[in-house]
Amino acid sequence: MSETTETASDQASPPILSIDGPRATIRLNRPQKLNRLSQLDLDTLVQLFDRVEANRAIRVLVLTGTGRAFSAGFDLNAISERAASAPKPVAEGSSGSAFEAVANRLEDLALPTICRLNGGVYGGSTDLALACDFRVGVDTCEMFMPAARLGLHYYKGGIKRYVSRLGVDNAKRLFLTAQKLEASELLRIGYLTAMVPAEALDEEVDKLAMVLAGNAPIAMRGMKQAINEFARGELDEAAADQRARDSMRGDEIKEGTKAFAEKRAPRF
Amino acid sequence: MSETTETASDQASPPILSIDGPRATIRLNRPQKLNRLSQLDLDTLVQLFDRVEANRAIRVLVLTGTGRAFSAGFDLNAISERAASAPKPVAEGSSGSAFEAVANRLEDLALPTICRLNGGVYGGSTDLALACDFRVGVDTCEMFMPAARLGLHYYKGGIKRYVSRLGVDNAKRLFLTAQKLEASELLRIGYLTAMVPAEALDEEVDKLAMVLAGNAPIAMRGMKQAINEFARGELDEAAADQRARDSMRGDEIKEGTKAFAEKRAPRF
Amino acid sequence: MSETTETASDQASPPILSIDGPRATIRLNRPQKLNRLSQLDLDTLVQLFDRVEANRAIRVLVLTGTGRAFSAGFDLNAISERAASAPKPVAEGSSGSAFEAVANRLEDLALPTICRLNGGVYGGSTDLALACDFRVGVDTCEMFMPAARLGLHYYKGGIKRYVSRLGVDNAKRLFLTAQKLEASELLRIGYLTAMVPAEALDEEVDKLAMVLAGNAPIAMRGMKQAINEFARGELDEAAADQRARDSMRGDEIKEGTKAFAEKRAPRF
Repeated sequence: MSETTETASDQASPPILSIDGPRATIRLNRPQKLNRLSQLDLDTLVQLFDRVEANRAIRVLVLTGTGRAFSAGFDLNAISERAASAPKPVAEGSSGSAFEAVANRLEDLALPTICRLNGGVYGGSTDLALACDFRVGVDTCEMFMPAARLGLHYYKGGIKRYVSRLGVDNAKRLFLTAQKLEASELLRIGYLTAMVPAEALDEEVDKLAMVLAGNAPIAMRGMKQAINEFARGELDEAAADQRARDSMRGDEIKEGTKAFAEKRAPRF
Repeated sequence: MSETTETASDQASPPILSIDGPRATIRLNRPQKLNRLSQLDLDTLVQLFDRVEANRAIRVLVLTGTGRAFSAGFDLNAISERAASAPKPVAEGSSGSAFEAVANRLEDLALPTICRLNGGVYGGSTDLALACDFRVGVDTCEMFMPAARLGLHYYKGGIKRYVSRLGVDNAKRLFLTAQKLEASELLRIGYLTAMVPAEALDEEVDKLAMVLAGNAPIAMRGMKQAINEFARGELDEAAADQRARDSMRGDEIKEGTKAFAEKRAPRF
Repeated sequence: MSETTETASDQASPPILSIDGPRATIRLNRPQKLNRLSQLDLDTLVQLFDRVEANRAIRVLVLTGTGRAFSAGFDLNAISERAASAPKPVAEGSSGSAFEAVANRLEDLALPTICRLNGGVYGGSTDLALACDFRVGVDTCEMFMPAARLGLHYYKGGIKRYVSRLGVDNAKRLFLTAQKLEASELLRIGYLTAMVPAEALDEEVDKLAMVLAGNAPIAMRGMKQAINEFARGELDEAAADQRARDSMRGDEIKEGTKAFAEKRAPRF
């Protein structure tokens, strides 16, 4: 990443996008607030997701945070104020919360995503991490999702992600007990897909990002979509069939099989 | 629990309900028969479930058994007699068995449930345990579900629970091999959500029950419902959205966020 | 197995069926090509599946390979040629590939199936193995499914099997990274349901096959169907209910409960 970016992180800001070859990194950047997310941060995230997705040179996205936590979730004061005052905090016509929309958008991003859990993850941000395809965390990170202790019913998109990624019983444990989990337990239940010591975090994430950046982007996008849709019980079977057929006569497979025959890395 | 209840367990009886503050305990009580369940026991269970659910002061239910087994399942003689004589043991219009209805009712109870596996679990009772949100078992408990060895096709609600809680391959292993599993294996495949030595069982169950009893009942009920519905492929999305929105302006979140700000336990 | 069969394997051939009592074994038999599958092999597999299923004396099927690999997948040259030349390699009306049809047929076979992974498994054959109810592998076997590296979008039936057997995150790992996995990791993520040293493979498979061959075939068939359908989000609930009811008055339960009472093995 560029020097400019490093400098920018010296003070709190909305999430920062940096691009390094085929890899984009979005960094939550309010370290004094443990990267708690404001409405402005959510809006910025969606804009950055749009930019990353629109840039076909970008092949993998890493989401991470500045400082000792990954993210402390959506600003509790905002939730609290809504609870205390607003009679209808969300438009009745809306199918869910603004936060849910961001997490759903992240899950559906057209390229592979890695959550680089540099530290603890809390509240709504636990679902942002789950919305990533891979979750690599330091062995000191913890997770705490206090909905049941706050009296909050999590939005349905998050509940689906918890159940489809962690299973029914782990989802119940997390949603009903609201207890804090440590890194090794997060790895055991699949919340982390990999766990490493802090000093090995960059190497682990870089290695994975490099692999993903080298694979066929259209094939990956289509298979990711099929996996996510099927996990939600919403697989568009005809579209998945069509993508599979199209891949059999696309440019990617020409290069992929050629590279295989020539025993070299493919260039997609 | 009261002395009265303890005395009542000295002889076999239908399941016994005892209430201790926010916690209800239902105890299967035919220890000489390893708590095998008769039709009367099933009817009693449903009545007790209704009573527990109707009492809003009760926040958590523990299901357990007297003696060395949790439960030996539905009375095999009854099944056998039906198989030998009755041409149509269940009304054609019925969507399943009486046993299935009890297990489905237990799964859908509006409060968190813990199965306290004081010992072995067999046959249909393996599904009663699965229908609970948490399953804490002693490290000597075993599980045996002999449907394929008896020539019995398990009812669909049980098959769904096995697949959604344990996964496709573990469900096949259990339904197709009909082999006995020991506690450590039950923990590994997720049939037990926690395993402890017998002398630590009460402490483990009490601790979990206490946590659940302290959390927001309406939020827990709604999220449990969403998790169960989604696991069955039947999520009512509009209802889940509505509950999530309602929770943002309910009494629970007012108390929950207030308690959080005041660094004290919430009182729901 | 008969001497004849052993002799037949000395040279490459389409898959070979041998029958030993209630057990059928289908062996992929192109060891010099690591049992890579040609179109002829696929056609033969379907014919053999039909024969096995039609023979009610057969109670369990083992699928394995000759030599040091289980199978190297569908012939890459064929895929490559299609990619290079044919504008429409698969009829537009088709819902998927010929390979997918074979794997789907295997998943739905009316008797329990065991994949005996005598060695590595690659490409499309990774899905053939997943389509079996049990996957017993040697501790030296590896798995490699390079779709994302070849630019190939896997067909939907395979994606469903990966997600429903291994979970969303393991499916993403395998489909998006296209990396090779070793046996111990395959066991951890559930791709193998059992792992043994090579010298113990036959004993492990024989033991499991014997158990399955001794259980009630109609009950097993029905429950397997319900599990598979539910895993695909396609459970025919009325049919499952009907099978469960029918089993209560069928011949199998008469023999099963009688054998249980007489403390002997049932004879179905």
